[in-house]
Amino acid sequence: MKVEINDIAKILRNNNNFYILTHKSPDGDTLGSAGALCLALQRMGKNARVLCSDEIPEKYEFLFDGVKNQNFDPSYVISVDVADVQLLGENLFCFADRVDLCIDHHLLHRQFAKVSYVESHFAATAEIIHEIIKALSVTVDADIANCIYTGISTDTGCFRHSNTTSFSYRVAANMIDCGANAFEINKIMFDTKSHAKLSLEKIALESLEFFCKDKCAMISLTNEEIVNSGACESDFDGIAAIPRQIEGVLIGIFIKEEKKGIFKVSMRTDAIIDASKICANFNGGGHRCAAGGTIFGSLIDVKNKIISEIELYLHNTEV
Amino acid sequence: MKVEINDIAKILRNNNNFYILTHKSPDGDTLGSAGALCLALQRMGKNARVLCSDEIPEKYEFLFDGVKNQNFDPSYVISVDVADVQLLGENLFCFADRVDLCIDHHLLHRQFAKVSYVESHFAATAEIIHEIIKALSVTVDADIANCIYTGISTDTGCFRHSNTTSFSYRVAANMIDCGANAFEINKIMFDTKSHAKLSLEKIALESLEFFCKDKCAMISLTNEEIVNSGACESDFDGIAAIPRQIEGVLIGIFIKEEKKGIFKVSMRTDAIIDASKICANFNGGGHRCAAGGTIFGSLIDVKNKIISEIELYLHNTEV
Repeated sequence: MKVEINDIAKILRNNNNFYILTHKSPDGDTLGSAGALCLALQRMGKNARVLCSDEIPEKYEFLFDGVKNQNFDPSYVISVDVADVQLLGENLFCFADRVDLCIDHHLLHRQFAKVSYVESHFAATAEIIHEIIKALSVTVDADIANCIYTGISTDTGCFRHSNTTSFSYRVAANMIDCGANAFEINKIMFDTKSHAKLSLEKIALESLEFFCKDKCAMISLTNEEIVNSGACESDFDGIAAIPRQIEGVLIGIFIKEEKKGIFKVSMRTDAIIDASKICANFNGGGHRCAAGGTIFGSLIDVKNKIISEIELYLHNTEV
Repeated sequence: MKVEINDIAKILRNNNNFYILTHKSPDGDTLGSAGALCLALQRMGKNARVLCSDEIPEKYEFLFDGVKNQNFDPSYVISVDVADVQLLGENLFCFADRVDLCIDHHLLHRQFAKVSYVESHFAATAEIIHEIIKALSVTVDADIANCIYTGISTDTGCFRHSNTTSFSYRVAANMIDCGANAFEINKIMFDTKSHAKLSLEKIALESLEFFCKDKCAMISLTNEEIVNSGACESDFDGIAAIPRQIEGVLIGIFIKEEKKGIFKVSMRTDAIIDASKICANFNGGGHRCAAGGTIFGSLIDVKNKIISEIELYLHNTEV
């Protein structure tokens, strides 16, 4: 069933007792979208509750400052920013065949809900939620504005990713006028590093090597280094991007030893290099400029395998 | 003489042969503002030329892609983003008492021009130039849009600094709609690191020390390390911000040995700490959250001097 924003507003007005499901390993967009929608529904006098399979990371807790804790049995289940039913995660998988409405912006969305609104031209699901709240005529207060702003800012890498549109900027501007504390949000999201993250970055920089006439830069973290750093999942944010940012580098590689002998490869490339083609050789794939894969062996074998595939690619494409 | 945007538009319409002066050690805002204004004046059929005391760094060269080289004697001299006549720099100082119109957004502007338009509520001078171009009814093409976008994005730290307003976002949105390549600009400005910068960051991270129960973090670069790295001025961008970004750190310090025994201190603080008060003890000053000073001696003496002033401040303010 194809729906428009106004249809969604109508559905929300006509129902009550909403469960709003986010994706596992939650980020700012799934949590910001859920928080904003929950707040809007509660402001309309409805019962609404946000659920996540994983614990909410501390840095996102402020998104739920204005949310009232309500206990009720769900009669309408919504998922936000969930591209695939598997991404609901272990603790929400019981809702897998009970999702009434899915709101998402992922290009590679796999439908699983009764009703889906999936529009990939939006940079963030939070932008869609903003349109829905407008259609519901709910006033955007500072709490809602903080949620929407966080979703947009995090999913656009603070307006730097190529998905960012002028619409993203305009919604952000409106949210600031409604009271969003953009400065504080961006400070928390982008300008705060844990001690563990800092130590990961230090070790990664020490491992930096250049190949293919400096067109290729590679950093790596062994499992032992990761365990010793005490890093959690979110501490790895942005590390894969480091080697590609170096002047003249067309291919940046981050090798992470997930478990002894199992190496996750993340590749970031300039637009003239197709990372997904190279990573197809490592049981992986992805997008043109960001792809990944998995290789088994020793670190030195993994590096050699990657370099020889890159050399072959560069030779064949004459870059 | 107090003027408004429309008065400036009138002045520009009634004059010709414009020299547009930027500040020394040019940044994205002074160059973006100058480029946009020059393009707009040339589109109006006027002669206009951008001048800078220093060489234009390579990463800003694209701002002048659309500018025609015109040779003429100036009859009207404008400065953009120049807060003090000293900042014109050695090679433009001959214009010091010839500036007809000054357009600036710095809070601490020292008037030196015949006519000044200084409004510090604008996050970037480029926002003022945008208003002037609008008042001139010049169509904003992609070249002008790239200039304005660059000025705003660089002066707001890609929309992260506390000076960013909803107006900044709205102008940015308009510039994207006019053809600004925001993604490429931000990639060049924020996501590209020279080899020298990378090596500076590595050395700085290795020097990291914590003091005052981890509330204070300090990094340093000796003159020898700086010289060996081959770094230029712009490679230091952002380094002063590193220590403050660490979780729990209220005071971040970057010590840079400018010349043997002469140490420049940059301090970045949480809003509860007044950096300018602490730096007043180091022949310096600045803003509440960003200040600096200069200390002479050995690195170890400099560190001790800074730490003892911070301990005194923390003791007296009971932070």
